[in-house]
Amino acid sequence: MPSILSRAAFGAAFLLLPLAAHAARFDEGMWLFSHPPTQQIKARYGFELTPQWLEHVQKSCVRVSTGGSGSIVSADGLVMTNHHVASDILEKLSSKERNLLELGFFAKEPKDEERCPDLHLDVLWSIDDVTERVESAATGLSTAEAGAARRKAMTAIEDEAKQANGLHCEVVTLYQGGRYHLYQYKRYTDVRLVYAPESQIAFYGGDNDNFEYPRFCLDVTFFRIYENDQPLKPQHFLKWSEKGSAADELVFVAGHPGSTQRLNTVAHLQYLRDTFVPAALMRLMRQEVWLQTFSGKSSEHARVAKGDLFSVQNSRKVYVGRLAALLDPQIFAAKQAEEDALRAAIEKNLEWKSKWGDAWDQIARAELTAAEIYRRYAAIGGPSLNLNADLARFAMLIVRMSSELAKPSSERLREFGDAALEQVRSDLASPAPIYPDLEVMRLESALSYLAETFGASDPIVVAALAGKSARARAEECILGTELRDVEKRKALAEAGAEAITASNDPLIVLVRTLDPHARALRKRMEDEVVSVERQAYAKISAARFAVQGESVYPDATFTLRLTYGAVKGYQDGGKPIAPFTSFAGLYAKASERSGEPAYALPKSWAEVREKLALSTTEFNFVSTTDIIGGNSGSPVINRAGEVVGLIFDGNIQSLVGNYAYSETQARSVSVDSRALIAALEQVYGAERIVRELRGGPRR
Amino acid sequence: MPSILSRAAFGAAFLLLPLAAHAARFDEGMWLFSHPPTQQIKARYGFELTPQWLEHVQKSCVRVSTGGSGSIVSADGLVMTNHHVASDILEKLSSKERNLLELGFFAKEPKDEERCPDLHLDVLWSIDDVTERVESAATGLSTAEAGAARRKAMTAIEDEAKQANGLHCEVVTLYQGGRYHLYQYKRYTDVRLVYAPESQIAFYGGDNDNFEYPRFCLDVTFFRIYENDQPLKPQHFLKWSEKGSAADELVFVAGHPGSTQRLNTVAHLQYLRDTFVPAALMRLMRQEVWLQTFSGKSSEHARVAKGDLFSVQNSRKVYVGRLAALLDPQIFAAKQAEEDALRAAIEKNLEWKSKWGDAWDQIARAELTAAEIYRRYAAIGGPSLNLNADLARFAMLIVRMSSELAKPSSERLREFGDAALEQVRSDLASPAPIYPDLEVMRLESALSYLAETFGASDPIVVAALAGKSARARAEECILGTELRDVEKRKALAEAGAEAITASNDPLIVLVRTLDPHARALRKRMEDEVVSVERQAYAKISAARFAVQGESVYPDATFTLRLTYGAVKGYQDGGKPIAPFTSFAGLYAKASERSGEPAYALPKSWAEVREKLALSTTEFNFVSTTDIIGGNSGSPVINRAGEVVGLIFDGNIQSLVGNYAYSETQARSVSVDSRALIAALEQVYGAERIVRELRGGPRR
Repeated sequence: MPSILSRAAFGAAFLLLPLAAHAARFDEGMWLFSHPPTQQIKARYGFELTPQWLEHVQKSCVRVSTGGSGSIVSADGLVMTNHHVASDILEKLSSKERNLLELGFFAKEPKDEERCPDLHLDVLWSIDDVTERVESAATGLSTAEAGAARRKAMTAIEDEAKQANGLHCEVVTLYQGGRYHLYQYKRYTDVRLVYAPESQIAFYGGDNDNFEYPRFCLDVTFFRIYENDQPLKPQHFLKWSEKGSAADELVFVAGHPGSTQRLNTVAHLQYLRDTFVPAALMRLMRQEVWLQTFSGKSSEHARVAKGDLFSVQNSRKVYVGRLAALLDPQIFAAKQAEEDALRAAIEKNLEWKSKWGDAWDQIARAELTAAEIYRRYAAIGGPSLNLNADLARFAMLIVRMSSELAKPSSERLREFGDAALEQVRSDLASPAPIYPDLEVMRLESALSYLAETFGASDPIVVAALAGKSARARAEECILGTELRDVEKRKALAEAGAEAITASNDPLIVLVRTLDPHARALRKRMEDEVVSVERQAYAKISAARFAVQGESVYPDATFTLRLTYGAVKGYQDGGKPIAPFTSFAGLYAKASERSGEPAYALPKSWAEVREKLALSTTEFNFVSTTDIIGGNSGSPVINRAGEVVGLIFDGNIQSLVGNYAYSETQARSVSVDSRALIAALEQVYGAERIVRELRGGPRR
Repeated sequence: MPSILSRAAFGAAFLLLPLAAHAARFDEGMWLFSHPPTQQIKARYGFELTPQWLEHVQKSCVRVSTGGSGSIVSADGLVMTNHHVASDILEKLSSKERNLLELGFFAKEPKDEERCPDLHLDVLWSIDDVTERVESAATGLSTAEAGAARRKAMTAIEDEAKQANGLHCEVVTLYQGGRYHLYQYKRYTDVRLVYAPESQIAFYGGDNDNFEYPRFCLDVTFFRIYENDQPLKPQHFLKWSEKGSAADELVFVAGHPGSTQRLNTVAHLQYLRDTFVPAALMRLMRQEVWLQTFSGKSSEHARVAKGDLFSVQNSRKVYVGRLAALLDPQIFAAKQAEEDALRAAIEKNLEWKSKWGDAWDQIARAELTAAEIYRRYAAIGGPSLNLNADLARFAMLIVRMSSELAKPSSERLREFGDAALEQVRSDLASPAPIYPDLEVMRLESALSYLAETFGASDPIVVAALAGKSARARAEECILGTELRDVEKRKALAEAGAEAITASNDPLIVLVRTLDPHARALRKRMEDEVVSVERQAYAKISAARFAVQGESVYPDATFTLRLTYGAVKGYQDGGKPIAPFTSFAGLYAKASERSGEPAYALPKSWAEVREKLALSTTEFNFVSTTDIIGGNSGSPVINRAGEVVGLIFDGNIQSLVGNYAYSETQARSVSVDSRALIAALEQVYGAERIVRELRGGPRR
């Protein structure tokens, strides 16, 4: 395993020292809890991370199944995360008559806490290195076979671990194949909604202000974990800081960054730049336009599409930022210089050269294959045949589960291994509402995209459309399927392969038609791209450790990471941006942008203006902590391990972080712990939560 | 020339008689004024078109340089068109302090009428068939040479005609190359703004309701033509009908449909379906998202981008409709059946077969070339190197003019022939405001699109970006160019090729870098695609005339056409849609959609509700007339040649009209002449316009 030194940083100023195993110069890094940046933090901030501090923070953090992070913040299992991490759940708990996104929610009493559909929280319990076992399974095999053998070994390790201790187990691929770790989680499935503010203040400024700073957002939601119908009494939870943080103070963020591509080769980045990111961006933009059009039909249409629209716009902004970073010749030149230097060092040592020297070219060839098939692969829905619609996803799970169950667990598609089946079944049993209009639009859009990409004369498209227009076919499948009925769905899922083959359900038929082609593309992607990458990146990791003295943290993988930094403003267009905003700034912005719906204050806030300590309550703040999508909802923690804030965004300059960390302007954006207390108390009258955060008894 | 019989219609019911030279069964057709549908109208409606009626209507109509249609409606040169045809002009006349789109405009007195920048109106004066001269220039040449020779002949004919009589002259290609006509226009360049309502009522329901019905829009603007600083006393103008129209009444629309592809071969339609339309749609969707993001920054950003956004959303809806039509297997099957039958008839006659039999395969091969190069061609800005930004367009005009002027007129790019130079110079002299923020965004988006399509390592992209990110390069070019200054622009345009080659203006440098590549792609498109199409479609036209008895009207070409039909409702989802809406419906809709900005009433309308005859004033209506984009602003005329309405839209079902006419649900949407009078009089107090429309004196 790599020891802990900062990875070679880049950017114009550092072109000259890409290989120096220098001590941390920056607050860079999404560090493994098993390999924390103890030395860097001590060097830069004089603070000593202890194993106790780390375990306490690790076991106080949660991973949220909607794709974000959170933390346990009371002795009674209260969990803090972002409103935008919870919004999918809030939408599912809403109805036409009770729109929780618009109204917000507060359970005045414990009994009012509402159980959330399709939500679970995972607490990381242990980390073990299983690299040797995974790699030994692949020894002596061809690249494609080795890939399959590794996936099989990973599933076997997960199945065994799950049987041994009942924890939720995942083998995580680190360094794109350089290391494999077994992560074991306590999974909590009874999660109830305690409090959420109105979208209007949680997401103040809407899509306009997303990724911008200064900001004025109360992007928070509180859940509570229950076990055996009682609030959880956790072994660990984070205490609350009433004092918040101050400029230049050292802070930590513990959360689950989703993915980064900082260790990619230049050829791999070129594939991302020229194929993957443009295609992903186009897909997002078309979804955004379809959703906007749908939302325009009525306020009810807008309500049911709001969550999708937010998520698509959010991703679109991310991809616009990523593409801009990839198209910046300076960033590419720095990447190229770093790679050239590493390769030159390997070339000079004959043993290294023979062991690792061919890895870069292997990846370059694999990316050509990826570029050739990616657009079709994406248009047919990628690895899980994603046709946008929830009902189509149920059909996919049913069709695939029926054929996968006929195989031994370790030979199945990874997501249908024994350890994962519980999740599949729980997904199929989801009671979340289905909106037929939205579903028809989603499926129509997916079918049209398929035709646009493959060409409408392609036999796959002809078979999928079955002689109808995309619209007519989508209507037929969505309005004609029985899968809207949870019980019928569950029954069909367990009816076995023969029943699925015989089914006339139009959505099952559609998925059955497309599945062999989606699987074939997935197999090519796995055998000819991913397996090659795994093998080659394992070599590059070894090469990098040899040359750079193991000064590397792995790319993000939606697993728990620790990052550190300082509360700090920055310069933008020659102007200084202060680290903190205040409640006063919110009211000033509302009056400056008056008349624009995105900047209207909710009634609750408009009414209490006089009561609030406007200029002395810090609202949002920025810090140099190294985060990315997936970190949403992460706690910001001080040296004492107390909550001083809640991550909810990065500024636009932080979007380059997918490929490279920068401390100049890139900042993470958080809600201040003082604003959270003030809002709960004075705007929402949620005294029982405030008491609980302050360590008092829950009532 | 073809005589006038309805072109073979198609659709499920007509699969069996695609070749019958039947009398008009439908109100189909965008007919040439030189070959009007006299016989069909007599057969179906018992009305006799006379040469006098036709000349009167022809010379009362105008083509608007922003891409729409209009008509002269008073003895003092008052011109009626749509608000959305005028919106670009209204934006140019606006400032931060006086937003005419928002406020509307009414010149209370003649002296208040404001001259419009960059606007001219054309009145069609004569039509002559020049097919023989164009085709004889191409005799005996290779396909690519023949294409160049035809373009050269067209320019020569235009130059001669312009010199002979001073009219604006255009040789129009009809039947995709089957016929060439010389159209001569009186061009009016002193056009002043008289009246426009607020966008809020002109475009009531916004993008949501665009292409929908029932509708409630006052989509009108009045201009006045001046000659020698005096209002024009036109030879012809349309009288106003106070009575409007009634259900089932015969009405005519005279206007300038932009383009249709109804006579395309199946292979050509496949190219549109699989390459051109998906690519165009993606481009529009990305522009829409960029513009939405830009607009979100402030209300001033929203104001300057509003026109662009409207136009992009409008086109996007059109292309969504077109793609849906092309992806409808039934429509394609009908096209295929029609083509099969025509080809079978040709195959049976040996002389026909040898003369025309190879045309379809020639087109099929050309479309393969088109499919291969189109995405790059579009990303580099197509024939005129369009990089989105107005300033980049000026740079293109300057760079290209400087090199084109070195050649004889007939050998230049068509748009730089002598007859066209006046227009180029007038474009360069435009005093319209330039918004640097918007320009930077537009150019950044175009540069990014170039990189996404070509791949960022492509030498063309590397040269264009000059080592900078798309954003940085766009800022450098837009903020660094001198072309914002009209005088410097004009001076540089006349400074000659050497000065342009030596210029260090960053935008000139950028255009100079890209121009050879854009020209090379244009040349391939012209030589290997368009020239082949021209030649092959000339054969197919001849074949069609031979088999079908010349029963065909040509596809739309943004030239004056006559269409006829009846005021008539339709069925949608089993529900009847009445032909007329009323003022009462407007107020009902406003209350039903209360709170949604797109449906807010402007103050002027909110205040007069009590004064208006709500349920008895017809507001909008639909008819079966065969229109398409470019017809916006066309007058709807009754048998007496009086204005009964003003075309402003088609319903969503009419979008298939690009490829096929349908009478079942496709409808054109108009403002009723009664609503126009009532609104002018009672909402806007514009009595002087009303008096003028009623034939009274202008004051």
